[in-house]
Amino acid sequence: MRNRRVILAAHVTGEPREDNFAIETVDRAPPGEGEVLVRNAFVSVDPGMRGRLSGETSYAPPVPLGAVVGSASVGRVIASRHAGFAVGEAVAGASGWQELGLSDGRGLRRIPEGPIPLSAHIGVLGVPGLTAYFGLLDIGATKPGETVLVSTAAGAVGSAAGQIARIHGARAVGIAGGEAKRRWLLDDLGFDAAIDRLAEPDIAAAVARECPDGVDVFFDNVGNSLVDRMLPLMRLHGRIVISGQTADYNLTADERTGLKNTRAFITHRLKMQGLVVFDYAADFPRARADLTGWILDGRLKYREDIVEGLEALPGAFVDLFHGRNFGRKLGRL
Amino acid sequence: MRNRRVILAAHVTGEPREDNFAIETVDRAPPGEGEVLVRNAFVSVDPGMRGRLSGETSYAPPVPLGAVVGSASVGRVIASRHAGFAVGEAVAGASGWQELGLSDGRGLRRIPEGPIPLSAHIGVLGVPGLTAYFGLLDIGATKPGETVLVSTAAGAVGSAAGQIARIHGARAVGIAGGEAKRRWLLDDLGFDAAIDRLAEPDIAAAVARECPDGVDVFFDNVGNSLVDRMLPLMRLHGRIVISGQTADYNLTADERTGLKNTRAFITHRLKMQGLVVFDYAADFPRARADLTGWILDGRLKYREDIVEGLEALPGAFVDLFHGRNFGRKLGRL
Repeated sequence: MRNRRVILAAHVTGEPREDNFAIETVDRAPPGEGEVLVRNAFVSVDPGMRGRLSGETSYAPPVPLGAVVGSASVGRVIASRHAGFAVGEAVAGASGWQELGLSDGRGLRRIPEGPIPLSAHIGVLGVPGLTAYFGLLDIGATKPGETVLVSTAAGAVGSAAGQIARIHGARAVGIAGGEAKRRWLLDDLGFDAAIDRLAEPDIAAAVARECPDGVDVFFDNVGNSLVDRMLPLMRLHGRIVISGQTADYNLTADERTGLKNTRAFITHRLKMQGLVVFDYAADFPRARADLTGWILDGRLKYREDIVEGLEALPGAFVDLFHGRNFGRKLGRL
Repeated sequence: MRNRRVILAAHVTGEPREDNFAIETVDRAPPGEGEVLVRNAFVSVDPGMRGRLSGETSYAPPVPLGAVVGSASVGRVIASRHAGFAVGEAVAGASGWQELGLSDGRGLRRIPEGPIPLSAHIGVLGVPGLTAYFGLLDIGATKPGETVLVSTAAGAVGSAAGQIARIHGARAVGIAGGEAKRRWLLDDLGFDAAIDRLAEPDIAAAVARECPDGVDVFFDNVGNSLVDRMLPLMRLHGRIVISGQTADYNLTADERTGLKNTRAFITHRLKMQGLVVFDYAADFPRARADLTGWILDGRLKYREDIVEGLEALPGAFVDLFHGRNFGRKLGRL
């Protein structure tokens, strides 16, 4: 069976470029005993994939040259020799940027048929939504009445984080790039305040204006340059959730802005902690039940930014690092 | 009654100098109703005092010009019109660098007569010992079998932290300046390994050599320059306890080294948290009971570095920032 896929053609150094990737067509053998073959309907395009593309060890092993680019995926079973999965069932997994995923069932989960579309299962109900959930509630330990600041707030993770903050009774303030995103946060998602970073000459002054009593939880997806500006704005016992470091992924340690305002760690008893959501795997069912409930009762909204076809994936990935996405970036196959 | 005291003559900018301070003699009125007068036997000389001397707001209000320099103090009651304190009783408080402290009883605690000398009550049983205790056990959440790295390990806080780590079944590795301190950590305190930072051209290589499996808890008293070098050596789910930032206190944010190796926060799920020990005041009695037990059974040792007389205090404070102390720095009055 013919399988088209996007492979890593050259390790990424600095900014990713489209020619780091190549498309190839290979033959996909039918599933062996205990295996299941899935035709992917959607694959994800995540800033977090950057770490695995450099050839250095990150929180996950690097993608070797010539291998399929790793990503989340969702689709339907088209052939199965696995007792747990039947032809026609919807499943989510991590088969990467390819049309056909072959799996032994590990890391594959059956998706309930229902009102929530397939794509959401690798978005608001997938890694981005779960990252928001555990980052905000476990590491951030967000409490009612607190002020939660979220960067990249119109992205898949940030938009969920801000809404979950509100659901938990906190005040949500978002930072996003552009007036359209700012209005979406305010008008559609119900953020209490939103800042267009492109319209603010001084982001720290803008945050201080919108968070006059300071920030209890800063949920960051940007990296050191922004964290350093926000450190002096944190309240006593504030928590900084390092969810992503998109602006730092393409920089070497030397190029990266350093955190200098670290005096606040003692003066304000700050806590800063990073997360990789897979550490919470045992609690995913509970989190997905909460998230599903909030989607169905209208309190948790999401937006998708879908590109069409395998060919569009490398460009969509490059765009991620230039703020050219608005919502969960996905490729439809 | 005549009271000699050290006052702040000029706010400290950059490195403290002896002429930031002045000595004066004033008259001390006898205690009024509800007050107690204490003749100080020892006062402390702490790097943490630096923050309050710059005139900027830190975790405690700044010391105004002309005011007594704040510090811990221990002595005996010489006059009392307070029902809770009798003449002759030993008490510890925070009266600062002066011979006679007047108090309304708040922040003053009675010290049990016994085998532990007065001075230890503002050392291993005072702020330094308590900082080690709560930093290591609460923020560090140190577990048996883990590797605990302690900087400024021959200082009052660091030496207690390393020993408490060992008492809790962890492996203690210390960094100190000079062979005498290194030998003291190994031979007298029982650290599992000790590094003389003055003899190591590459501190990260030295730590990697002594902590071949990485560091679970880094208890730091130095600041950004060292933390940044240690970040890549932290183990998965490692904790960084920001206990002190001695090397940073004299620097502006611009002069300070920034933390750049922050990628490890996500890849290794690190947590970094600062503490001010007064947040744990409600638990001080329990902590002091533990610390006292360990001192009496010989598992917790301490060393004092005592200067004589008020006149010696400014110079002793300046010395702190040049590594010229070995153990808890105190002035005997």
